[in-house]
Amino acid sequence: MGQTITEKILEDHLVDGDLETGEEIGIEIDQVLTQDTTGTMVWLQFEAMGLDEVQTEIAAQYCDHQTYQFDFKNTDDHRFLRSAAGTYGAYFSRPGNGICHNVHRENFAAPGKTLLGSDSHTPTPGGLGQLAIGAGGIDVTVAMGGAPYYIEMPEIVEVRLEGELPEWATAKDVILEMLRRLSVKGGVGKILEYTGPGVESLTAPERMTITNMGTELGATSSIFPTDEQTEDYLERVGRQEEYVELQPDDDAEYDDQIVVDLSDLEPLIAQPSMPDNVVPVREVAGEDVDQVIVGSCTNGAYEDILPAAKMLEGREVNPTTEMIVAPGSKQASEILAREGWVAEMMAAGVNFSEATCGACIGIGHVPASDSVSLRTFNRNFEGRSGIEDDNVYLCSPEVAAAAAITGEIVDPRDLADELEDLEDPGIELPDEYDASKVDLITPDEAVDDELVKGPNIGDVPLREDLDSDVEGEVLLKMEDNITTDHIIPATQDILMYRSNIEKLSEFTLSRVDDTFAERAQAADGGVLLAGENYGQGSSREHAAMCPMYLGVEAVLAQSFARIHRANLFNFGIVPLTIDEDTYADIDQGDEVEIVDDVHEAVTSGQEEFTIRVNGDDEYTATLDASARERDILAAGGKLAWTKAQAEEGGAGATPADD
Amino acid sequence: MGQTITEKILEDHLVDGDLETGEEIGIEIDQVLTQDTTGTMVWLQFEAMGLDEVQTEIAAQYCDHQTYQFDFKNTDDHRFLRSAAGTYGAYFSRPGNGICHNVHRENFAAPGKTLLGSDSHTPTPGGLGQLAIGAGGIDVTVAMGGAPYYIEMPEIVEVRLEGELPEWATAKDVILEMLRRLSVKGGVGKILEYTGPGVESLTAPERMTITNMGTELGATSSIFPTDEQTEDYLERVGRQEEYVELQPDDDAEYDDQIVVDLSDLEPLIAQPSMPDNVVPVREVAGEDVDQVIVGSCTNGAYEDILPAAKMLEGREVNPTTEMIVAPGSKQASEILAREGWVAEMMAAGVNFSEATCGACIGIGHVPASDSVSLRTFNRNFEGRSGIEDDNVYLCSPEVAAAAAITGEIVDPRDLADELEDLEDPGIELPDEYDASKVDLITPDEAVDDELVKGPNIGDVPLREDLDSDVEGEVLLKMEDNITTDHIIPATQDILMYRSNIEKLSEFTLSRVDDTFAERAQAADGGVLLAGENYGQGSSREHAAMCPMYLGVEAVLAQSFARIHRANLFNFGIVPLTIDEDTYADIDQGDEVEIVDDVHEAVTSGQEEFTIRVNGDDEYTATLDASARERDILAAGGKLAWTKAQAEEGGAGATPADD
Repeated sequence: MGQTITEKILEDHLVDGDLETGEEIGIEIDQVLTQDTTGTMVWLQFEAMGLDEVQTEIAAQYCDHQTYQFDFKNTDDHRFLRSAAGTYGAYFSRPGNGICHNVHRENFAAPGKTLLGSDSHTPTPGGLGQLAIGAGGIDVTVAMGGAPYYIEMPEIVEVRLEGELPEWATAKDVILEMLRRLSVKGGVGKILEYTGPGVESLTAPERMTITNMGTELGATSSIFPTDEQTEDYLERVGRQEEYVELQPDDDAEYDDQIVVDLSDLEPLIAQPSMPDNVVPVREVAGEDVDQVIVGSCTNGAYEDILPAAKMLEGREVNPTTEMIVAPGSKQASEILAREGWVAEMMAAGVNFSEATCGACIGIGHVPASDSVSLRTFNRNFEGRSGIEDDNVYLCSPEVAAAAAITGEIVDPRDLADELEDLEDPGIELPDEYDASKVDLITPDEAVDDELVKGPNIGDVPLREDLDSDVEGEVLLKMEDNITTDHIIPATQDILMYRSNIEKLSEFTLSRVDDTFAERAQAADGGVLLAGENYGQGSSREHAAMCPMYLGVEAVLAQSFARIHRANLFNFGIVPLTIDEDTYADIDQGDEVEIVDDVHEAVTSGQEEFTIRVNGDDEYTATLDASARERDILAAGGKLAWTKAQAEEGGAGATPADD
Repeated sequence: MGQTITEKILEDHLVDGDLETGEEIGIEIDQVLTQDTTGTMVWLQFEAMGLDEVQTEIAAQYCDHQTYQFDFKNTDDHRFLRSAAGTYGAYFSRPGNGICHNVHRENFAAPGKTLLGSDSHTPTPGGLGQLAIGAGGIDVTVAMGGAPYYIEMPEIVEVRLEGELPEWATAKDVILEMLRRLSVKGGVGKILEYTGPGVESLTAPERMTITNMGTELGATSSIFPTDEQTEDYLERVGRQEEYVELQPDDDAEYDDQIVVDLSDLEPLIAQPSMPDNVVPVREVAGEDVDQVIVGSCTNGAYEDILPAAKMLEGREVNPTTEMIVAPGSKQASEILAREGWVAEMMAAGVNFSEATCGACIGIGHVPASDSVSLRTFNRNFEGRSGIEDDNVYLCSPEVAAAAAITGEIVDPRDLADELEDLEDPGIELPDEYDASKVDLITPDEAVDDELVKGPNIGDVPLREDLDSDVEGEVLLKMEDNITTDHIIPATQDILMYRSNIEKLSEFTLSRVDDTFAERAQAADGGVLLAGENYGQGSSREHAAMCPMYLGVEAVLAQSFARIHRANLFNFGIVPLTIDEDTYADIDQGDEVEIVDDVHEAVTSGQEEFTIRVNGDDEYTATLDASARERDILAAGGKLAWTKAQAEEGGAGATPADD
């Protein structure tokens, strides 16, 4: 039987299990990436495991989330990360050098390789034929130690692209169309493999806009075949020797197929406050826009900013609107500056920012009250911009630039009808990505050989072995689609404590109920209750670590987002699936008790658990977990488990039998 | 008798009093400027006074302090300021367009004109022969209403410049030398008038570095004569028609004279943590440097950044050091970008930032713990960078660039010996300051005609008439040189409440004693005790408004900084001068009572007051105030007084007889 691209790469890296959908497999990881929000914990865990040196081909530590450094804690984190990269043999990308996904694709992403990253948009280089997966920090730590990465073999879905994009439709509209069709849950447990005649019309950067934002579908990853476009991009970034041809076999079998005819697409926009709330731009045309931001790992590359710059050339940003450009990398800034585009954008009224995740995670350029912000980003979860009740729309750079010019949402096709000399700028790659690499410090050039810890860098919290008795109050009942931003907001005032779990925990679920942390501590822990897709969004493991610190022992949910579910195992919280009726019957404040001996049941492979509510009604909850996940859970989390493995195995500190 | 330049301009604008040192004079104000930290209160007061339209020739509202907009409160403030500028007829400079002093000098500063600004570095355009004075926001409000500005006629001191700067010595070293000689109190009550043969060797931008940082001497203002250099600068900014020749008469008489031989100067540096802690760079050479920042209103213009850019060309920022360039204006960024320098700096490893005050006031790029930061700024007060126990040095862009290259403090002369091709870049102006003005919205182009207030924009607090009885506990005993940063820190986490006095007050004097605000409220107010030069630093009137809100009725100090003293009158707090022995005898916690009927004594012109401590010992304190200041104090502050004046006068709301 023929193979998909995903199967080919997985088979190449398989060290445990079989490539059967739903079975757990262990794969070798070639490259890892971390960023400054998740990275401090990764390295503290790496230190706690007692390992000496990174074992993957490439490990790269980026500083992109908190590069404005509003607080010494941010700067101390960057200082610590530089020291960790130097000490353990990773690349270090200095603050200001750009967003991890952009810098990684420019420097390291390679077809056929595996990449594990502690950031949910890690799948970006899927557009170059790399199998790239976002994971919790602890998984990255363990992979960095040379151990395999374990995952349930996902379904592989073919996304067959036909036709070519018409004028003013872009790669962003492809992924917005996917979100419109599939919703933010549509990709859960799946790898999306793009195929078909439409693929070749998309340049590698366009493909990476699609694979990047595949994360918003909940997909495990997204991947494109490689071809002349891939080779062309690798040549332009100076790494043509890394090209490998990757195509699915003619008789490859997919679990499902979706067909998108590119020629049917038009400019689309995601309305507040979910990335799948997608409509044609024309449906919301005329809405006043107060702020426009072009940037982020989805649309912050040279190729993304250039069309906006061209549209603004000789024009002015509307006086009612602020426009900010935050490039994805300093490489993009430098080339745009060298070609004169930065000056042109400034002349048009653009506030040109540092290369940072910044506003995309609510850090800087927070919208004004009761205002509309149009962004080329990937997420518009409520409050993520830094203000509650925000109105954030997601769109292509072209739609963003059109709004900046007019001060309102407008389909650029209609604007082009109005402004005679406005043409679709199309996509254009530079002949060569010719920019300095001075901000990417190689392991050989490392300037530190020991860890430098500021006063806000705390200890890694550890949980004891899983108890036999799990019971407690339902501390919070939540709706569907609770995001990791709800669990631990990524705004600056909160996330500056990311290396200090005791302090950070005070903000746990504060966006849902600001009395939660206090109540959880007063109750000495308890359980959480949620609807569908609990924990969607970022990979941040703080969303598991903080509930763990507060004593949460189990989460009952109708379904879990993949990375967050893994993080719950990794931090020793029992993730139990319940059905809709059970969800409906249980209320906040109820006393829940798992009737089984939980430690015993988890280790023995038991799937169905009986939960008793208020000492009376009984329901069934399911633990869907591999043997490995059960072992981790029973040990109280992955760090405790990895340490125990290493000690038992006597094989030094390397968790080689992970 | 011949006149000084200052006397000529003052005489031209005099509407009340005589030009006798120490006498109060009222002068007409041609131009005003406000920024986003002080501006919200200015406009709320303008609204409270019921005025319809700005009366000065030019009023300009800049957004420069909080342009990263980390919080919706910042963005709401900017939105409010745009609406206020539009409603009342002021220019509005959008966030990202640059620092008020830079944008003002580029667009409006003109020889012979008067400028009042609610920012302490307002004297910057003194380098162009403008008489520019920093004041509290309420003074700016009143001036904007068309009323005169009242001030005690300062001493006029001649600073005679001889010779020419040698290689690698810069205008920054001139003002650092002044600080070394005179200290941060040396200019109090004085206007420094630069004269002599050395003047003509300095370009207008260099002069403005000197007049800008004259603020750190405590000077009321600093001013240069006008000449070909002035005319040349005005031509390059496209405003040659505004040139006026201004020279002191040959027989002008000065109150004092200081002689600086430029040819004796060498690269200087202010050590932590006071701008007058100045030594030759060579004395501290070899100190490791973690962070270098080029920017600010002192050294953030095109002419300031260009030398650093030239020094970095073909070189790299040391991997141990982060270098940030934060231009003073987008004009500077745009021209530097157009000429290719932004790309060059990025290639060298510079993180190129938005045009903002930013790091200079602790907003962004806060140093790491236990690290050294070299900055081209004007202030290095402890904690101002955003972290306690900071180590901030102040120097020229040349010294900063040298440190970025080597990773340690080094005299650029010594570095030039080492690196053969490193030459003194000197000073170079662009042929033409050719940049877009799209971010400076003129009153004619205004897009708002009513005020837009976000939920954090509060009411203006008002105090009642001054009591006859003033007594209370000494809530805090402070040392010499307490700055307005001590009284109300300007860091983001605090200053985001600048339009919300109730909330902001919680942080009053927290840097000295973090129990202060709570104790003051519990005690229902009281008095403050301080040493010399109380209230030095910024013009922010929150440093008077918040103590007023907390019930502080009087400040006993050995001496007061000029602007803060005016702010105390303006907010109804009695500023009493005491001698050293009295200061020594009184302790925190003592009960202090002013024996006199304070309301009566203030209005009757009484200068000596008897204060009784703990119901026993008596001391003398002095109130040095003009009749007008006494009226304001008695009325409970300037806003109450202005409103009363307007109501009594029946002349509408215009406080024409201020």
